[in-house]
Amino acid sequence: MINLVELSEKIFIKDKRSISKAITIIESEEKNAIDLLKLIHNKTGNAYKIGITGPPGAGKSTLTNAITKFLLIQNKSVGIIAVDPTSPFTGGALLGDRVRMNEIGVNPKVFIRSMATRGSLGGLSKKTIDASEILDAAGFDFIIFETVGVGQSELDIVNAADTTIVVLVPESGDAIQAMKAGLMEIADLFVLNKSDRPGADSALMALKTILMLKNHTDEDWLPNIVKAVASENNGIEEIINEIYKHKNFLIEKNILNRKRANQLKIRIKEIVETFLRYDLWNEENLTELNKYLLNHFEKTISPYEVAEKLIINFKENLKSKYD
Amino acid sequence: MINLVELSEKIFIKDKRSISKAITIIESEEKNAIDLLKLIHNKTGNAYKIGITGPPGAGKSTLTNAITKFLLIQNKSVGIIAVDPTSPFTGGALLGDRVRMNEIGVNPKVFIRSMATRGSLGGLSKKTIDASEILDAAGFDFIIFETVGVGQSELDIVNAADTTIVVLVPESGDAIQAMKAGLMEIADLFVLNKSDRPGADSALMALKTILMLKNHTDEDWLPNIVKAVASENNGIEEIINEIYKHKNFLIEKNILNRKRANQLKIRIKEIVETFLRYDLWNEENLTELNKYLLNHFEKTISPYEVAEKLIINFKENLKSKYD
Repeated sequence: MINLVELSEKIFIKDKRSISKAITIIESEEKNAIDLLKLIHNKTGNAYKIGITGPPGAGKSTLTNAITKFLLIQNKSVGIIAVDPTSPFTGGALLGDRVRMNEIGVNPKVFIRSMATRGSLGGLSKKTIDASEILDAAGFDFIIFETVGVGQSELDIVNAADTTIVVLVPESGDAIQAMKAGLMEIADLFVLNKSDRPGADSALMALKTILMLKNHTDEDWLPNIVKAVASENNGIEEIINEIYKHKNFLIEKNILNRKRANQLKIRIKEIVETFLRYDLWNEENLTELNKYLLNHFEKTISPYEVAEKLIINFKENLKSKYD
Repeated sequence: MINLVELSEKIFIKDKRSISKAITIIESEEKNAIDLLKLIHNKTGNAYKIGITGPPGAGKSTLTNAITKFLLIQNKSVGIIAVDPTSPFTGGALLGDRVRMNEIGVNPKVFIRSMATRGSLGGLSKKTIDASEILDAAGFDFIIFETVGVGQSELDIVNAADTTIVVLVPESGDAIQAMKAGLMEIADLFVLNKSDRPGADSALMALKTILMLKNHTDEDWLPNIVKAVASENNGIEEIINEIYKHKNFLIEKNILNRKRANQLKIRIKEIVETFLRYDLWNEENLTELNKYLLNHFEKTISPYEVAEKLIINFKENLKSKYD
């Protein structure tokens, strides 16, 4: 049996093997994961969390790499969680751009972990955030979440990060596509990566125009746009400065605390719902559900009526447990 | 007060205004929506449902348009649900590619509805599928779901469609990006759209190579790849034939029934969980949760412990209701 107290002690001294083991526990052993997270909780809350998102091919990994190198020069430690939309089809074998990151991964002040998202419906946010708690307790100054940002994952990143960076490239229409995909309203900072490519200036103008359309008060943070070529380390210093500027803004206006309380609220709700789901879909209720599915094509009873019956069952069962 | 029986009668005779009204009810009035869905349920199950997904800019709307026109020639009726990842930022004003679809929308055998997804966490799949029930009961031969496919939405489409089409374009790396994003394993058919562009043949080769890597038995459906230029109606007939081929396969192998039962299972589970969530996050429990959040920065109690307390509260409340 694993000694979780011992493991947590090793996490606190940034032992990489123990951190890695802890995240594996989070990915695969729920009971131990919960006990471990309870143990380390009082050491958390100190890391500053950066989310990096954007469409596929925008250069998110390269940017994460460059930002990390810069933070290392400032003597900061960095924990990275790369959220991989891995295909069960390929086993993630083609994710070669992660390989580059091994270079910084050997630095004792850097920890990199890739986490898969497929097949863990609703679990992305929960497990990713649980893993970041480990890195937080390990004393990393910064935690970077890197994820493809179209669909649900960019909402998850907002629920995890203090500063969210949206990475775009100058290709025509990209700004508008990003807006369609909902990336615009989550950004605290835009990075126009690969800005040595043709069309960078017009993309910048398009972005600025779109941003000006946004209603805002003096109390609101206005996201800046930084041009960068991450692969050549261009623009990285400005990005880091923007992150600090945003961090200071959040602290001065007392928003950081409120933001984290809200993230925590979402997280606790998710935990509660996950636990109740186990109670809900026990063998008895699943048998009941499957019974109905046998004759579904007869359309004699609607899904809503089945749902209502299942809920009554569930509540009566809970009641009898307490009798 | 709205007369739902009257409304359902009008839905059954494909009255467009009534169908539109019904979907608005689904979007905004839960109580009426449920009653209406119960009323129409026994008229559902006859439509064949097609999901069209792919990365932004792949030409999904244009393809939907072309497929619909072709089905009209075959004297089929088509209901379209365009799932819009609308930005609250712009109110969707830039979604000009939908405008083109108005052209077919005036045909009495076509009904088009755009549904927003933002801000309705977890609600995309539920409300979209509820809306498709209305179209199904209205007697449309085909229902097409069109949605941007990166992240969660492509999983939702698999839970709604009988045949899922993944649209890609020849741009370099697109196939690989799509694979990363998890689009490859959900496709029953690939459409390589804009295949008059340079790189179409090598993209086709790349796709074929990737597909050959997939393990399969004789019982599995092997997705085909069709080259198309949707804007010029090229390749559309072949796409339609592939859809029929897939449909026949599903029926002959008795998979369609199993597939729909499984979709229904997921749907009922979602309905049950949504209803229970209302019970769960009542004022009392939210007050309890908020109380903890006030001092969250002290890190004295972990989120998992808060969750456990909330669950005990919830169960005890349910019990007392039954006493």
